[in-house]
Amino acid sequence: MSTSSSFIQGQLSPDLTQPLPGSRKAYLCGSRADIQVPVRQVLASDGGGQVLVNLYDSSGPFTDTPVDIRVGLAPLRESWITERGDTEPLAGVSSDFARQMAEETATMPRFASRRPLRRAKAGKRVTQLHYAQAGIITPEMEYIAIRENIGLEQARTEQRHRGQDFGATIPNAITPEFVRREVAEGRAIIPANINHPEAEPMIIGRNFRVKVNANIGNSSVSSGVDEEVEKLIWATRWGADTVMDLSTGRNIHHIREWIVRNSPVPIGTVPIYQALEKTKGIAEDLTWELFRDTLIEQAEQGVDYFTIHAGVRLAFVPLTVDRVTGIVSRGGAIMAKWCLAHHQESFLYQHFREICEICAAYDVSLSLGDGLRPGSIADANDEAQFAELRTLGELTKIAWEYDVQVMIEGPGHVPMQLIKENMDEQLKHCHGAPFYTLGPLTTDIAPGYDHITSGIGAALIGWFGCAMLCYVTPKEHLGLPNKDDVKEGLIAYRIAAHAADLAKGHPAAQAWDNALSRARFEFRWEDQFNLGLDPVRAREYHDETIPSPAGKVAHFCSMCGPKFCSMKLSQELSANRDGLKAQAQRFKEQGAQIYVNQD
Amino acid sequence: MSTSSSFIQGQLSPDLTQPLPGSRKAYLCGSRADIQVPVRQVLASDGGGQVLVNLYDSSGPFTDTPVDIRVGLAPLRESWITERGDTEPLAGVSSDFARQMAEETATMPRFASRRPLRRAKAGKRVTQLHYAQAGIITPEMEYIAIRENIGLEQARTEQRHRGQDFGATIPNAITPEFVRREVAEGRAIIPANINHPEAEPMIIGRNFRVKVNANIGNSSVSSGVDEEVEKLIWATRWGADTVMDLSTGRNIHHIREWIVRNSPVPIGTVPIYQALEKTKGIAEDLTWELFRDTLIEQAEQGVDYFTIHAGVRLAFVPLTVDRVTGIVSRGGAIMAKWCLAHHQESFLYQHFREICEICAAYDVSLSLGDGLRPGSIADANDEAQFAELRTLGELTKIAWEYDVQVMIEGPGHVPMQLIKENMDEQLKHCHGAPFYTLGPLTTDIAPGYDHITSGIGAALIGWFGCAMLCYVTPKEHLGLPNKDDVKEGLIAYRIAAHAADLAKGHPAAQAWDNALSRARFEFRWEDQFNLGLDPVRAREYHDETIPSPAGKVAHFCSMCGPKFCSMKLSQELSANRDGLKAQAQRFKEQGAQIYVNQD
Repeated sequence: MSTSSSFIQGQLSPDLTQPLPGSRKAYLCGSRADIQVPVRQVLASDGGGQVLVNLYDSSGPFTDTPVDIRVGLAPLRESWITERGDTEPLAGVSSDFARQMAEETATMPRFASRRPLRRAKAGKRVTQLHYAQAGIITPEMEYIAIRENIGLEQARTEQRHRGQDFGATIPNAITPEFVRREVAEGRAIIPANINHPEAEPMIIGRNFRVKVNANIGNSSVSSGVDEEVEKLIWATRWGADTVMDLSTGRNIHHIREWIVRNSPVPIGTVPIYQALEKTKGIAEDLTWELFRDTLIEQAEQGVDYFTIHAGVRLAFVPLTVDRVTGIVSRGGAIMAKWCLAHHQESFLYQHFREICEICAAYDVSLSLGDGLRPGSIADANDEAQFAELRTLGELTKIAWEYDVQVMIEGPGHVPMQLIKENMDEQLKHCHGAPFYTLGPLTTDIAPGYDHITSGIGAALIGWFGCAMLCYVTPKEHLGLPNKDDVKEGLIAYRIAAHAADLAKGHPAAQAWDNALSRARFEFRWEDQFNLGLDPVRAREYHDETIPSPAGKVAHFCSMCGPKFCSMKLSQELSANRDGLKAQAQRFKEQGAQIYVNQD
Repeated sequence: MSTSSSFIQGQLSPDLTQPLPGSRKAYLCGSRADIQVPVRQVLASDGGGQVLVNLYDSSGPFTDTPVDIRVGLAPLRESWITERGDTEPLAGVSSDFARQMAEETATMPRFASRRPLRRAKAGKRVTQLHYAQAGIITPEMEYIAIRENIGLEQARTEQRHRGQDFGATIPNAITPEFVRREVAEGRAIIPANINHPEAEPMIIGRNFRVKVNANIGNSSVSSGVDEEVEKLIWATRWGADTVMDLSTGRNIHHIREWIVRNSPVPIGTVPIYQALEKTKGIAEDLTWELFRDTLIEQAEQGVDYFTIHAGVRLAFVPLTVDRVTGIVSRGGAIMAKWCLAHHQESFLYQHFREICEICAAYDVSLSLGDGLRPGSIADANDEAQFAELRTLGELTKIAWEYDVQVMIEGPGHVPMQLIKENMDEQLKHCHGAPFYTLGPLTTDIAPGYDHITSGIGAALIGWFGCAMLCYVTPKEHLGLPNKDDVKEGLIAYRIAAHAADLAKGHPAAQAWDNALSRARFEFRWEDQFNLGLDPVRAREYHDETIPSPAGKVAHFCSMCGPKFCSMKLSQELSANRDGLKAQAQRFKEQGAQIYVNQD
């Protein structure tokens, strides 16, 4: 990955900003002029004319207008937030740490421009859950309803298979009222910190499209701010619905500022990572006060959801002792170490209500971390894992008392036959709060290919009802992912999420497959490439053996050559379409009869 | 891919022949000295000492001794075949076409050395099914029993999860008698042409390890003999249990000879492809006589299984007319065109008994092709597909009358919720004959990544009971796969097959995951790489950020860095192992009690 100084100076390379080949950005307008929902439109030929295929688009303004990352994205939600009248601007940052950072001599480029910070007025809860329960349909909810319906209009004329939904209830069209109700009932969340007005609203819930999260962030061993902002933009380009900044090295605070100000998608973090940086890596030195200050610091920067491992209780730690791979969650291991060192209950668990109060004041959603998730097939679905899951269910209820939005994190490494139990237990114990899983990896034997081992598990659990899939890159277990790895991970997970949408029977899902397959059958190569998840790769592969422009209109490819192209042969058959249809009808009427006669 | 003339001169590059890093070839001896079953042994440290982890090995002699591909592999089964006394050597080739080829001026390098051809003595059926039904345990069956048990000894001391087997009944140890019975009952096949004595016996059936097939072969647009033999060796190296030579261009006959003589795994073909070459691509000109001659030509070369699309009946063709992607099987499209052009029943269907007679004389297994498989999500599980499947069931019974081994090919493109129906219908209509599917692809939207879209479906259908998974490479739909694509496809499918074995509860499967996960948890980086499906890639990825040798013993990697390594933290916890175990016991006894007390 290049670390060009021109990057921080605001010049983004075309591979980050050009629309995908054959695609253009468009906007669907809502009931007010400032509800403008982005859509990726692919121009294709179909049925003898030109058609626009509308696809969900997470890439933000980067693929539309020039963005100066020193200025950051426009605050599209700002007026929605201020209009509600329940927040107030702050004179400055509230956390001790952010104050220190402001005073410190710069050792790296700082994000300079900044709008005023906001916080809830005293006594107010400014969460989407709070509004939803009050019966208010926010602009965010309307925006999401439009966004979730992308492609639906085209899908109405398409045949599609019946889904198997395992209890999900996706309506034929998403209304703003449906969004409100799903949020009100805790089945979906809208991660939307009032200090991240740049983000385009999105929803996580099992009655909506399955979402994908990409983890970025440096470690002490590798990567700086340029690379992380580049990865952010790159990740949204390839379909990340949210991005988690898991930085653990130096300069976390400043890197995060660059990321949030330039992120069109919700940003999640694991605040205990930064807290541990502040204690120079000594878990035992962590305190509630330090952690609390970190939460406020991050909430005021605009982090949209916090992963908090409050379910790693002292009593559960010993349950991991006979595991093959112990505790593999970083946050989980940190908290386990703290609990044992002090022989005290986790301060996250004990101060959970205070955490909720902070979240309610900024609308930070909680992602209750699975600190005891299995890190190997052997450890899947054990008592440590499920004891924690039940605790996360208790904490969900508490968070809801504070109108805080909650999702539940899940494993990890799980063989296929044990995946459904994870979903079932989560639904049973967590009161319908959305599930958000890492994979799961369905085998341990393929380091270097864990985007595939886990893509299998992700597709399955997405089908069963998991609302968001945290990607795994090919570098998992081996090193920090680079830009290529981020893309590989995302494409694998977009596949898993879409396969899950199809299997659940999402009403708009199959129209996309049909559009691509029609292009394939009709040898519209350009359309086939452009309608795909990765038009660049598809074209490259085709060019490898047939680089000439003529190959892009040829009725065959190098896989089979002209004489053996089944699709070409099959099209020739269709020339006598009417005759064939009549025969098909006869077969349907006479069934085995015709079949026997023709022996 | 390089096309070096040195290749045909017998010099193989080290990347084809060196054992995988950390691995060595060993052999497990059977009841007679010439039963020597290959095994990949990985030397690892575990439990404080050195251990050998035994893994199934499809790479053949290439990873053991120097092979001169001009001479071909040693005929390990030759004496087993001759001892049976039911075959006889032929004076020369029996097919007209092979005779022509022998007389033709060479336009490409010919495989020179050749053992005498064999055929069944008059009235004899020389198939493994015939022997099995006669109660005979062949050396092939004993070889397979040993091979299927690889890793079982180590697995006995391992905890493992209970599988969900959907009716598969994998015993705790495979005996030769069990192999015989599975073959006798048609639930498994041993593709083992008497003219391919070089092949190492393997079995395809749902009560055995799930197998993977790799397709190679040139097309008229691309690739020659060097590249195809290289792909063959490369494919077996990365785990292909069988290889299909799908060549459709010039010189099919000669390329096949090079491939079969150098293949340690069974070779499958689709004979209609070559027949169509003989009619210069004109489907209407195909005749039974031409096809019959092609079968004999290939049977005498040693092809182990034939894909024959005898289920594409005239009456079914019209059922495809309203499909989004018509007929996508090459063989299916050829036969459909022939049937319509002549308005006659398929000659493959009408001459099916004669086909069986040929197969019985050489022990060629039948892979009944799914010529009407769906080529898009939209077309999955339609009447055309299932009408053909029921016909394949009828043909299975006929083949069994001739003691011919049979497996059934399956789709294709199928969304996840419709995959199980494919397995269920196959079991219902095909009398337990093994299922062999292409993927299925679970979505159409990702050209360039169809190894992943289909790896998901392959894992699922393998779990449900599919016996062999035909790989799909990233180039699917876009071009002819090269060497890199072959490897990517194979690793994705080895993952799918192993994930399926785990999910079914194969008794030896999880021990592999456990061995790797223990290495991972103990920071035995070399062991983690070497125990993986692709040690080369795993090491490269680790080297990318931590190239120094010290990194290979470090208790962290660049993903998290030293302070945030959960496994490092977790190991530190285990220092007080006894104390933790006592606490865990207390938790188990007191349950919620201890939990409440610690609030």
